[in-house]
Amino acid sequence: NKGLKSKVMNVAECIKKTGKDDPRRVIHSFKVGLALTLVSLFYYSRPLYNGFGVAGMWAVLTVVVVFEFTVGGTLSKGINRGCATLLAGALGIGGQHLATAFGKRGEPVVLGALVFILAAGATFMRFFPRIKARYDYGVVIFILTFSLVTVSGYRVTQLFQLANQRLATILIGGATSMLVSIFISPVWAGEDLHNLVASNIDKLANYLQGFEQEYFHCSEDKEKSKSALLQGYKSVLGSKASEESLANLARWEPGHGRFRFCHPWKQYLKIGALARECAYKIETLNTYLNSEIQECLEFKCKVEEPCKIMSSESSKALKAISSSMKAMTAPSAAKCHIENSKTAAKLLKITLETISVDDAELIAIIPTATIA
Amino acid sequence: NKGLKSKVMNVAECIKKTGKDDPRRVIHSFKVGLALTLVSLFYYSRPLYNGFGVAGMWAVLTVVVVFEFTVGGTLSKGINRGCATLLAGALGIGGQHLATAFGKRGEPVVLGALVFILAAGATFMRFFPRIKARYDYGVVIFILTFSLVTVSGYRVTQLFQLANQRLATILIGGATSMLVSIFISPVWAGEDLHNLVASNIDKLANYLQGFEQEYFHCSEDKEKSKSALLQGYKSVLGSKASEESLANLARWEPGHGRFRFCHPWKQYLKIGALARECAYKIETLNTYLNSEIQECLEFKCKVEEPCKIMSSESSKALKAISSSMKAMTAPSAAKCHIENSKTAAKLLKITLETISVDDAELIAIIPTATIA
Repeated sequence: NKGLKSKVMNVAECIKKTGKDDPRRVIHSFKVGLALTLVSLFYYSRPLYNGFGVAGMWAVLTVVVVFEFTVGGTLSKGINRGCATLLAGALGIGGQHLATAFGKRGEPVVLGALVFILAAGATFMRFFPRIKARYDYGVVIFILTFSLVTVSGYRVTQLFQLANQRLATILIGGATSMLVSIFISPVWAGEDLHNLVASNIDKLANYLQGFEQEYFHCSEDKEKSKSALLQGYKSVLGSKASEESLANLARWEPGHGRFRFCHPWKQYLKIGALARECAYKIETLNTYLNSEIQECLEFKCKVEEPCKIMSSESSKALKAISSSMKAMTAPSAAKCHIENSKTAAKLLKITLETISVDDAELIAIIPTATIA
Repeated sequence: NKGLKSKVMNVAECIKKTGKDDPRRVIHSFKVGLALTLVSLFYYSRPLYNGFGVAGMWAVLTVVVVFEFTVGGTLSKGINRGCATLLAGALGIGGQHLATAFGKRGEPVVLGALVFILAAGATFMRFFPRIKARYDYGVVIFILTFSLVTVSGYRVTQLFQLANQRLATILIGGATSMLVSIFISPVWAGEDLHNLVASNIDKLANYLQGFEQEYFHCSEDKEKSKSALLQGYKSVLGSKASEESLANLARWEPGHGRFRFCHPWKQYLKIGALARECAYKIETLNTYLNSEIQECLEFKCKVEEPCKIMSSESSKALKAISSSMKAMTAPSAAKCHIENSKTAAKLLKITLETISVDDAELIAIIPTATIA
């Protein structure tokens, strides 16, 4: 009994946390419920039901499958589904006509062959990276609709009317999803991408700031707050997949807020890649903090001054870049910080005559600035 | 006209390349075609059609949506779909009964409220990371089936028969997909994961081997073959997402070949993470090669001997680990290589009295060996 109670408490905690992490999730859930309820009105109101009949089911199905968290996802799936259904429906009716020309005996054989060839071909197309990224869902729906239309045609007599009804209901379902998704507190994939990249750069800046304190002061007092600063960059390392999927979705979105249609989303991927490269270097840097090997103090004293300037200036530069990204202005403040840290790096090189890891890091920072 | 011709040639090239990269893709396409043709037999043969009627459509739909490239993917989707349909169908019929108790006027209101609440709740559940990873598809199908059953119930009188037919056809479609997927040249996600992790370790070993040659010899003759060796590790950096999805799918697979059911797939993720950490360090190391800053020759000469031993021994150790992973034996040969490279690292430390990047790398290698 107690075990059950603690389990329930655990689940409740988990629900609360998920909702708090991103309140838009709760709103999204209600939006899905709303769109579904709207579409099921087809069944409840007699005049609408008489027009579409059981085909109204496809509107419900479309809403459930098409409604995604971001506007870009919903638009991409909705447009894919609509176009693929139209194309596959037309081809399917054509294939059906072709098959009837072969007589009562030949018809199922020709239909079977057609389904086999088109399904195999379309499935193979899904392996092309370009199609996979943008039109994967459309190809699946194409196979589905084509098989359904050709195969149903063998039994159902009013094929054209069936296809017509189905297309209409799919359009209604898709349109409902898109409208609800866009007009009720929309979640833009593009904005998410923008914020993700900016916050990633912020995290790197935080790390450099924290590193400077940790490495040279070794104070125990603010242990916790520092380790939080130092751990932030870890999420940057694995951000590639989410950045790419967001950029793919952002491409489908219309202009909104500060972003126009055809905003250069690919540039974000480049900045993201540079930030990741920077994070790889920080990961290496981080092993120095964790390793138990202690350098002689003399060495530390020698490099302290330039290293401090360098890391704090690069940190300031990254901060300036991320804040100017957020405000969407040219990063003018960052330039002087970069200059400062460059001179500090040179100073360090003179002191050391070896290549420091920080130096390599700096090389990665400069192109970031020029792109942003 | 010429432009069109070159475009067609381009596409043909692309098709050839996609097929050659992984011949299993071609086989997979034919498997999908076969499963679809098998299922559409329902429409062509009169006795089967009389039993199921239009519900046979659901078998076609299930095959298209459930059939995935790997066995694990097909099983995961098939089982998710079957269970979710069963559960949602039962709940939907219950909800329908509940709603009829509210009379002719209250029924649509209660139905609408039920759909809204369950859809919103289930959509929210999809945000939990655990459910997202394993049961995402099941939750979507749950929402879909529940809405369809409750909403259809308002119009269709023989609801129980409808649900029964639909479940049966979905089971037939799912079973066909799974059987074709397992018994006709199966693609096991687990085996793919195993090979991916082993080949990643191999790539790191190749890099270290190439690095040694590149850094100390600087010969121009075999430029191309070397740069291929040196670029291989780049794909390791971004391998996290594909490893995780493969591990998720592998969990659904029955025992096959050298792998039992409940093979410790999570261990692969750990090894993969260590390999990635190692790759981050190599990425840093790689900037030394690309940077135009040249160290003084004296320094190079000093570190040449231990560095060479270290990188070649680590490379051998990694090679031994990956080949013993492939053969699934304990990596006994690797141990002595690790010892050798450790002593070389110590020697280097004495020479340098600074921490080398290679050293940090070595730290990452040791746990890899102990786990594998």
